[in-house]
Parts: sequence; C-alpha cells; structure tokens
Amino acid sequence: MRYSTFFPKSNKREFKEDLSKNAVLLTKAGYVNQLMAGSYTLLPLGLQVIGKINNIIREELNKSGAQEMLMPLLHPKEIWDTTGRWSDPEVKKIMYQFEDSRGKNYGLSFTHEEVVMNLIGKYINSYKDLPIKLYQFSTKFRNEPRAKSGVLRAREFIMNDLYSAHESEEDLNKYYEEVKKSYVKIFKRIGFNVKITEAPGGVFTDKYTHEFQFLSDVGEDEIYYCETCDFARNSEIFNKEDDCPNCKRKPIKAKSIEVGNIFPLGTKYSKAQNVQFKDKDGKEKDVWFASYGIGPTRVMGAVVEAFSDESGIIWPNSISPFQVYLVSLGKDNEASEIEKKLEDAGIEVLFDDRDVSAGEKFASADLLGFPYRIVVSEKTLSMDSGQIGKMIEFKKRNNEQAEFLSLDEVTTKMQEEMEVLH
Amino acid sequence: MRYSTFFPKSNKREFKEDLSKNAVLLTKAGYVNQLMAGSYTLLPLGLQVIGKINNIIREELNKSGAQEMLMPLLHPKEIWDTTGRWSDPEVKKIMYQFEDSRGKNYGLSFTHEEVVMNLIGKYINSYKDLPIKLYQFSTKFRNEPRAKSGVLRAREFIMNDLYSAHESEEDLNKYYEEVKKSYVKIFKRIGFNVKITEAPGGVFTDKYTHEFQFLSDVGEDEIYYCETCDFARNSEIFNKEDDCPNCKRKPIKAKSIEVGNIFPLGTKYSKAQNVQFKDKDGKEKDVWFASYGIGPTRVMGAVVEAFSDESGIIWPNSISPFQVYLVSLGKDNEASEIEKKLEDAGIEVLFDDRDVSAGEKFASADLLGFPYRIVVSEKTLSMDSGQIGKMIEFKKRNNEQAEFLSLDEVTTKMQEEMEVLH
Repeated sequence: MRYSTFFPKSNKREFKEDLSKNAVLLTKAGYVNQLMAGSYTLLPLGLQVIGKINNIIREELNKSGAQEMLMPLLHPKEIWDTTGRWSDPEVKKIMYQFEDSRGKNYGLSFTHEEVVMNLIGKYINSYKDLPIKLYQFSTKFRNEPRAKSGVLRAREFIMNDLYSAHESEEDLNKYYEEVKKSYVKIFKRIGFNVKITEAPGGVFTDKYTHEFQFLSDVGEDEIYYCETCDFARNSEIFNKEDDCPNCKRKPIKAKSIEVGNIFPLGTKYSKAQNVQFKDKDGKEKDVWFASYGIGPTRVMGAVVEAFSDESGIIWPNSISPFQVYLVSLGKDNEASEIEKKLEDAGIEVLFDDRDVSAGEKFASADLLGFPYRIVVSEKTLSMDSGQIGKMIEFKKRNNEQAEFLSLDEVTTKMQEEMEVLH
Repeated sequence: MRYSTFFPKSNKREFKEDLSKNAVLLTKAGYVNQLMAGSYTLLPLGLQVIGKINNIIREELNKSGAQEMLMPLLHPKEIWDTTGRWSDPEVKKIMYQFEDSRGKNYGLSFTHEEVVMNLIGKYINSYKDLPIKLYQFSTKFRNEPRAKSGVLRAREFIMNDLYSAHESEEDLNKYYEEVKKSYVKIFKRIGFNVKITEAPGGVFTDKYTHEFQFLSDVGEDEIYYCETCDFARNSEIFNKEDDCPNCKRKPIKAKSIEVGNIFPLGTKYSKAQNVQFKDKDGKEKDVWFASYGIGPTRVMGAVVEAFSDESGIIWPNSISPFQVYLVSLGKDNEASEIEKKLEDAGIEVLFDDRDVSAGEKFASADLLGFPYRIVVSEKTLSMDSGQIGKMIEFKKRNNEQAEFLSLDEVTTKMQEEMEVLH
C-alpha cells in the first residue's frame, strides 16, 4: 500500500478537540477523527486496527463454540419493559431513549440482554437446544455525561458482546470459567496482561461480576490486587482495611483501565422474560444466562495509552495495521521491489512514497508506530556485495538502534516474530 | 460445521409476523429473525450470507482504489443544518431525529454525505490531496411508514456507502463511470444482471441519479427499458408516450427491485459546507462529489425473492453460507470423513448430524438452499469398488436429478464451479 494514495495523506493539522493522550495520538497519526464529543470516525488505519482486534476475539470465541450473529441497535421500549430496565434510573442516565413521529418509543442499544433472551426464547424447547453461545460485533451507544477520554469513554463505540444460555448453574459456571480464560488469552494476544477483578453488577445484576483490568496510571478505575495470588477487587467493593482473603497480605492499590467485563446473570432475565425449557424429565425450568463484553475501540485506546512515547504510538505486532513502514530515500524503484518481496512473504507494508523530506518520513514512521521500519537508500544499496542480496536499514519501533541487514535476514526475523503471536 | 451445534438447530416454529416471501423463507430457514416490524436479527447463517456479499463489494471497490473506514451513526443536528437537510420535510419523514436529556439534537444516519464532506474538509488543502474515495459498511436507519417487505424495506439495515471527492467534473465523471462498471460486476458475481436506470434525485440532488434495478415481479419499482440498447428509466421520470432515445423503439415496462443507487452530487455539498481546495494555479475551487450505495441486506432479500421455489431458497454459489449440505443416513463416521476431505479441499460443509428423519434432513437441505447436497448411505457406500474411492449421492439444489459419483469427481466439479466465480 502506498502512502501517497492513502487517506489521510498528511498529518500536519492540529486537532485540539480532545486532550487525552489516546485521542491526540490517534488523531495526529490519522487513525481516528472526532465527529463530536465522544464520537469518532474510524479512518482506514483505525479500522484496520479494530479489524485485527476483532479477528483475535473472533478466533478465541469460535474455539469456545460460540457463533457470530448481528442484532438490531434500535430497540422497542416493550422489550426493555419485560425486565423493568427501561425505567431504571441508572439505565435512563446512559440509554438514549426517544419517541418517533408515530408515538413509538425506542432505545438505542448499550447492551443486548433483553433482545438476546427474547430471540433464544423463540428457539428453545428442550434441554437439547442448550447450551446456546452467540456473539456479535456492533455499535453501542451511551449517553456519557463527560466524554473526555478519547476512545476510552465514548458515546458511540464498537462492542463485542457474547451471550450464553445453559440448562444448569453448573453448566453456566463451567462456560463462564472457560470464557475467563478466552478473555485472558485474547488480551495476551493483543499485547497485555490483565487482572481478573471482582466488581459490582451495576445495571446488569445484583451479584458480583468480573472485570478485566489493565494496570495504567491514566486509568479511571482503581483496584486492589494481591502480588502473591490472583486476587483482585474493584475499590468500589473493597474494604480498605481488608487483607487478601487467600494470602492474608495487604493488597496493592493501583489505577487501571477496564477492557472487558463479564456477568453471571443467573435466571434473572429468563424469569422476567419467561424463557423456560423442558429438562430430561419433562419439567419446565428457567434458563441460566450470562453475558460477556469487550470493547475493541476502548482496547485500541488503552493500547495507545500504554504503548507510546513522545514520538508516537508503539503498536503490538498483533494489532498493528501494517508490520513495516518502508522509507525510500531517493530509491523508489528499489523500494518498490522490496515492497513486493515483503508482501509476497505475507508481510504488510506501508510504503511512504510521498514527496516529503527524510525527516518527515522518519517522524511519520514513529508517529504511526508500526513495529518495523525499513529504509532503502544509496548507502544501504551500496553495501550489496552480490552474495547476500539487497541490504536495508532495519529498526524496531521500540529500539533506538538501527541495523544494516540483508532483506532475507530481516524477512525471516519478522516472519518468526509474527508466528509467535498465534 | 455440525448442524447439531448450530443456532438455531430447528426450524419447526411458524413465524407469522411478516408475509413477504423473503421474510418467510429467511425466517423459516433460520437466516433472520424479526425483532419488530422492519427490524431483523441476522442469525449466524444470515450473517454469513451478508459477509460474502460484503466481501464481493469490498474486493471490487478496493480495485477501484477506494479505502474502507467507519463513520458514526449518531449525527449532531448542526452538521445536517449546513446543507439544510435537517429541516427538509422529505428528510424529516424518514430520519429518526430526537433530543437527548441534555437538550442536544441528534439524527440517526440514513446516509452520510454531510459527515463525509465535513471529514474530508479537514484533510484537503490542495489538488494533491484529491481524489479521495472512501467507503463503509454500516447500519442505516429509515423511519419507514410501511415495513412489510421483509429485509427488502427495513427500518434498520446494512448499507455499503461509497463517497468520492474530485478536483474537476471530468475526474468525477470518470470515476462515476468506473463505479457503474464495478456495481454491474458486483451484481453479476452475486448472481444477477441489473439495468442501470435513470432515476430522480430524491433528497440527495436535483439532478438525475442512477439506480441498479433487477427485474422481478415482486418489485416495488417500475421501469421502462429498451430491449435493443442499454436505455432504462424509472417510470417516475418517464413519459409513457416516449420512445427509446437511442433506438426510437417503444421501451418495455417492467417491475423491478432497486439494489443500488448512485448520485453525481456535483458541488452542492462542498459549496454548502465550504470545502474548497487550491488548484495547480493556487486558485480556490469547490470539491466535486458523488455518493454510491448498495444495501447488502436488501440484496439478500432480492436474491431470495428471485431464486427460490416452493421448497425453499436456491442460493447462488457465490453468497451461499455453505456450498454443501451433507446428509448422513446412519453413516455418521463415514460422513465425518467426507466432511473433513471436503473442508480440506476448501469447500464449506454443513453436516446435518441431527437425530431426525431422512425426510426432515432432505426438507432442510431444500429449505436452507445451498448449491449442493451430498448423501452418504449404506447404498452409496456399497458402490465403492475399491478403485474410485468413496461413492456419494450428489444433487444440485436447482436440479431434480441426483447422481451417484465418486467423492473425488464431485470435489473437482465443485472446485471448478467455484473458480468461475472470481
């Protein structure tokens, strides 16, 4: 892909709408653009990052036997009335609700429990129809009072939500634990470790839920976690004087960013919406239910907050829109050849063929933040002894030092690093 | 993929919400489910069809140099005020508009001209930044007074919208003609021929636009077309007494379904939104603009209306969720082996391993409508002479006759038919 044909082609403009680090860097580098407070267009580069995050989620959820579908965003009031959530003051604070010109009341989805339960209720007769595991990637809306954290807390964002229905609490718990592991794997593949944190149920349930928290000084959340064991709890439900219940040691307090949240909802929704099934003995029973959510746009923001320096973003290899930022210093023909060779080897390349200075190209390479930078110049080409093929300058985004290597060596090195990601 | 683990597993229920043919068949077969009038969940099978349609569109638009991105669905009133469309009575009829709890006015997107123009205005300085060609796949909302045509005319649907910005009318016209050809190619790959039809501009422009009309008796549109040349015009702007302007013959009147629409918008939007660029001589000029739309969910509905019989759907190979419906009559182990061999050969298989009668399996095969049905039974396996390998019963969905063939013959045949699709 050539930078000269890319949109946007330049990043010279100053954007001052939002001062959070993720918004500034993602905007300057051309990944997103703000339409209004809390609402962003995903530009081609940004959509590529989200596509890669989504594919990692999709792969791991498919392994757990879940299937992808897509539900509507505009919900009739009646369906939210079945659980009473339409009129819940906490829901009314965040859900956009309105009446259309014909007097019908709608809500814009911030979650889909009622709609899923309504759907599966139409297809469940007996225990043989369970379990059901369905997920989607779709737009969610939240009427956020303050939307000043870039894509970390937006009014409109992409969400991956998974729902599972089971014949027993035991079966639900088993799958719930499996999804916990899938989530940890997903975040590991994306590039960070998370703490599985006990948290309040909010507008979803009276029980505890589990958040996936990523330690970060810019986080809006605060958690207590144990250094010795897996214990972690959101400060909202942690008693400051308490010790770790396992290790009896004082837990550590830390700021964090929530990147996922899972909810063991039990039979609350199936009871309210009358979704029952016949068990092996022909008895009617309530369906056991849980929901699970990861926000890919939020994850993108968290990654930028965590992995960046004063020059720009530093993408983990697994979600970088391209692996290689290719710079030609007056050697466009040779760079073209190298671009083709790399692409043939399955490596994604953005070739900066713009008519700008070397300094500007290097600055863009750092700002956009792909894992590898390759420079082709008079100097590198003159090193070709005829035996080891074309020489290039190779630099990792998170290293200071550049190396002079043959293209073949570099290709092998990058392919090896990419394979580790799966 | 095993049918026994698929959602939904059965199609026994009667759904009476909607009586259009596409809604009945897509619902009975488990592709979609209605949430409310004009609003459907895309179940796993339905989402797979849409995914294939989207990929065909993506491939052809990428060839034209366009790039994919994703814009917000919730639009601030202010941006629609720039062109005056917020208050246009025709827009108010179809756009959901509402005020949030803080007194801010929003509209739910049914199209994105204003938002795109606002976006590209931030990045255009000179003619060097043009052309720009951007597209997305996203949810659109239309407050349809009557939503009784299934996924053909929904209140919420998936739309592929492309926007292009140019430095001159000439450059715009060139790309506009290129997209016409891309659209014809897209529809051909999906499985049908379209008439490029002159049409009124509606709420988009005062000029003529072009619709892609697919002849069908259930269509809500009416067009006049010439049998000899390419001439076709929507009846809304056709004078009944007129002859074809090229051939001077009487055109034919026919019902049709609109599956795409393209709009040469000129400088109307750039003037209203103040989006100018510096040309080669440093002079400020208005940007030339066009938009182009295909509705993948609508296309799915049109396909079902056109390609179906009393037993069910007959998918074109290119957008069928699976190629093969595999039926085992008491030979599950052997069917499993065949499933694996086909999948290894790159063929998508749904293996009906449900504990139901042969009759029910055959009925599902016809209803779901994949191009090929393969049956493995005592009878087929007994034909294996040891030289030509496993024998199967092979039937095309649109043929009455089944054939007994070796698995290798069938695999080669299917692979050849699939290659023609690209």
